[in-house]
Amino acid sequence: MAAVCILDEFEVHNNEEFLKIAEDLKPELHTTTVKPVKLLEHVKTHSDEAEPEEKGMREEELSALPEKVFKKDDSIILDFGDHQVGYVTMDLESTGSHQDAPLYLYLRFAERLDELDSDPAEYNGWISKSWLQQEHVHVDVLPARVELPRRYAFRYMEIKVIDVSMKFSLVIRDVTLKAVSAVRQEDVEPLAIDDPMLRKIDRVSVRTLQNCMQDVFEDGPKRDRRLWLGDLRLQARANYQTFKNYDLAKRCLYLFAGMPFNEGKLSACLFLDPKPEPDDTYLFDYALLFGSALLDYYEETKDEKTLKDLYPTAMRQIEIGLDYLTEDNIVPDHSDEFWCFVDWGDGLNSQAASLAILIYSIRYGIRLAQIMNDEERISFLKKNEDELKKSAVEYFWDEEQQMFVSGAERQISWATQIWMILARVFPQEKNRELILRTIEVNPDIRMVTPYMYHHYIDALIRSGEKERALDEMKRYWGGMVNDGADTFWEVYNPDNKDESPYGSVMINSYCHAWSCTPTYFLRKFYNA
Amino acid sequence: MAAVCILDEFEVHNNEEFLKIAEDLKPELHTTTVKPVKLLEHVKTHSDEAEPEEKGMREEELSALPEKVFKKDDSIILDFGDHQVGYVTMDLESTGSHQDAPLYLYLRFAERLDELDSDPAEYNGWISKSWLQQEHVHVDVLPARVELPRRYAFRYMEIKVIDVSMKFSLVIRDVTLKAVSAVRQEDVEPLAIDDPMLRKIDRVSVRTLQNCMQDVFEDGPKRDRRLWLGDLRLQARANYQTFKNYDLAKRCLYLFAGMPFNEGKLSACLFLDPKPEPDDTYLFDYALLFGSALLDYYEETKDEKTLKDLYPTAMRQIEIGLDYLTEDNIVPDHSDEFWCFVDWGDGLNSQAASLAILIYSIRYGIRLAQIMNDEERISFLKKNEDELKKSAVEYFWDEEQQMFVSGAERQISWATQIWMILARVFPQEKNRELILRTIEVNPDIRMVTPYMYHHYIDALIRSGEKERALDEMKRYWGGMVNDGADTFWEVYNPDNKDESPYGSVMINSYCHAWSCTPTYFLRKFYNA
Repeated sequence: MAAVCILDEFEVHNNEEFLKIAEDLKPELHTTTVKPVKLLEHVKTHSDEAEPEEKGMREEELSALPEKVFKKDDSIILDFGDHQVGYVTMDLESTGSHQDAPLYLYLRFAERLDELDSDPAEYNGWISKSWLQQEHVHVDVLPARVELPRRYAFRYMEIKVIDVSMKFSLVIRDVTLKAVSAVRQEDVEPLAIDDPMLRKIDRVSVRTLQNCMQDVFEDGPKRDRRLWLGDLRLQARANYQTFKNYDLAKRCLYLFAGMPFNEGKLSACLFLDPKPEPDDTYLFDYALLFGSALLDYYEETKDEKTLKDLYPTAMRQIEIGLDYLTEDNIVPDHSDEFWCFVDWGDGLNSQAASLAILIYSIRYGIRLAQIMNDEERISFLKKNEDELKKSAVEYFWDEEQQMFVSGAERQISWATQIWMILARVFPQEKNRELILRTIEVNPDIRMVTPYMYHHYIDALIRSGEKERALDEMKRYWGGMVNDGADTFWEVYNPDNKDESPYGSVMINSYCHAWSCTPTYFLRKFYNA
Repeated sequence: MAAVCILDEFEVHNNEEFLKIAEDLKPELHTTTVKPVKLLEHVKTHSDEAEPEEKGMREEELSALPEKVFKKDDSIILDFGDHQVGYVTMDLESTGSHQDAPLYLYLRFAERLDELDSDPAEYNGWISKSWLQQEHVHVDVLPARVELPRRYAFRYMEIKVIDVSMKFSLVIRDVTLKAVSAVRQEDVEPLAIDDPMLRKIDRVSVRTLQNCMQDVFEDGPKRDRRLWLGDLRLQARANYQTFKNYDLAKRCLYLFAGMPFNEGKLSACLFLDPKPEPDDTYLFDYALLFGSALLDYYEETKDEKTLKDLYPTAMRQIEIGLDYLTEDNIVPDHSDEFWCFVDWGDGLNSQAASLAILIYSIRYGIRLAQIMNDEERISFLKKNEDELKKSAVEYFWDEEQQMFVSGAERQISWATQIWMILARVFPQEKNRELILRTIEVNPDIRMVTPYMYHHYIDALIRSGEKERALDEMKRYWGGMVNDGADTFWEVYNPDNKDESPYGSVMINSYCHAWSCTPTYFLRKFYNA
């Protein structure tokens, strides 16, 4: 399913003062020079069959690289040892006779080694194949230092010689990466937990976050590379427990508030280039969660100026959310539209979750209003919170099944239960029963993204199930670690590891910010 | 047949003084801004068959370009009106929602429109596919001015959108070419001949020469782009009748003389980048023809310093040529090697032609020695000339067939007769009979390249067949004009228009310097 939103009559109302504040907070990126740690080569053995058979990979030391001589169709994989984001420079030379034709290279950059087994020519997903990290490069004159101008997110770089000539061959003298990030690994305090798997999960979380922290909190450094509101909220939470780069969070909040559209709605995501501009995409849940992100920021920083500047924007999102309510005081069913994100995954009905997220946002709105001493707003929001909790139960609670349903088909999903728990429609003990019942029933409409799993872990912790939350983190994020993750992935469905929201795993992002939150949970709720 | 030469123990002895003279003569290139003259689009009509059928091309004004909106798989061909050599800049924009993915383009540059019907992925010739003029380009941020860093030789540029996204489309605001050459069309005097076809042939010749005159006389601006000695000799002759850029000819002569290898041999071709360096390729005929090129230059310029500097190099080539002689005073048969060029074309035996070219070069050597008043050399060369003419007749003249043969198989080819005529083994009247007999017999081993046709025309003129030479120019080069040539081609076999020395016409060069010489003949021998 192609999930895009294109709004008609999209009119942005820039707040230049806010955008100036955001611009002034643009970070200087830290750069680190990184070398490959080893070389990998496909080993082909000839069996009785006509076709050579792949027999895994042969590893070699990096020092062997400049000794190698590459002819037509030769290739090599450079392993940079960890997930990297940055700019690659190749020092190339020729050997043999004088170079009598251009060198023609094909390059691929892969976050996971498996990606190199797929063929980009066969990609037919619904988002642009331009995101596949591949280049065709002609080098007219050797020796040459080839500085690739584009940024890549990868651990593995494959260099394949499309052609040299009969008279010369290629020598790869050196390949260097200039890795970039707004933050440095060494600024993070060590985790005070001994469990080896949790330590691994924390390390991978922190690396994921670091590689997504660039000019803004990007959602994924491979693909999209944009600032999404829902993702920002989770990244900022992880950042407050690790890098503590408050300026980047502040910058992103001002960017969103600086570019509302039409009646004051916040866009679901922003572009930075060639100048900051919002996407014409509205996501009901993302816009509402701005208040939650603002409160998180204020609680970390006590930055009253920012709170005061951005409070009206947060309140406006709630007002807009309330405007959507039907006569029955519920959110209408938009489930055939890309209107409320909640989770990827086919067939999820988001009506009940939408209402739950509205209730959740109102609670954060009340806390903001309390800090602002905005009494009128507090009573307005409290009244709405009470009423919406009532309609949530009235319309979506299935007494017989003891679970919330959603949509005309009365769908039961994990997502609906989790958001109703986070909305605190029921008191904590009943929430605890609900989450345990959900685990027991294991509804067919499962969670797919780490974004949704974050809210599941949150719901477990808020329901007093801290130990179970830890187990579930180990199962889910630990599953990725066991599957070789250097950074956490955009999509991970333990039941279907080939799941892609885009019609092809080739285009999935394997360093995706919304999956970095185990470090938030571990450091906030479990650190010794 | 892959025809390359890789010399072992190749040792270059640079003459730094000569290389300094050459470096100081490096031209400032003239640049001209060129716009496409029209747009071409494939018109597809759906017949009863499932596959859409190509129905030729639709033409449009350039002004329609910025109005067009390009989605995935859309393409357009820009026609620049004439053969061009230079650097392309594209001004690209997006339309629709904000660009949310890189733009991914595939570009092709074609000297002839037909080339665009072929698929570079299917190229499997023996010279490097890196010469195929194609690029894959990602553009991360639109609008963008994309300055392609490589130089292309083309008339047609195809822009194909590999992908945009569902949210934005491409607009091509403008495409501009910065054409480059060491010379300017307007510096050539008009041809004083009325015949429309001859005027066309002259114009195409001059354009061919102009587009090959860059830092040096390149053989072809699409492919190779090198300075070949045999090609230089013909280009310089055409240049003396047209652009009269003596410095470029002088520069190239000094470059060759500045980089002899081993016993003083001249390389068949030179590279200019990253610094001047000779290819490890020796071609017996090319090296010998250095003296002819030097004499041509001296006769045009009366530049005694250059003559004096380079005379020893020319003489050395003849000495080396003589060293190859067998006890029978003939050149040994190297026909299975890439050792004496003569012509492309399968199966040509070059033994007899090699001897003829040696004799030809000795005659030029004698003329050089006469100008230098080098009496000793004159008598040495004259003696050799007489003896070699005798052995040419003795070993290669077939009295019964009244033609020269070559090699152990006693092969009769056009090339052998032509070079024996140019060597003046026989007096003019007998040469005239021989060329007429060759035309009548039409030996199976034909001429393939314009380089060989040049010598055929030369042989006709030197045998007193000026009118027939004109007819043959009209037939051969006029054939290319009638086949749509904007510049003359590397290979043109009227009997097999798909001929390629490389296993695929895709890689043939369609602006090739050695085919520019009709302007030399027309202006030197026919101008009013």
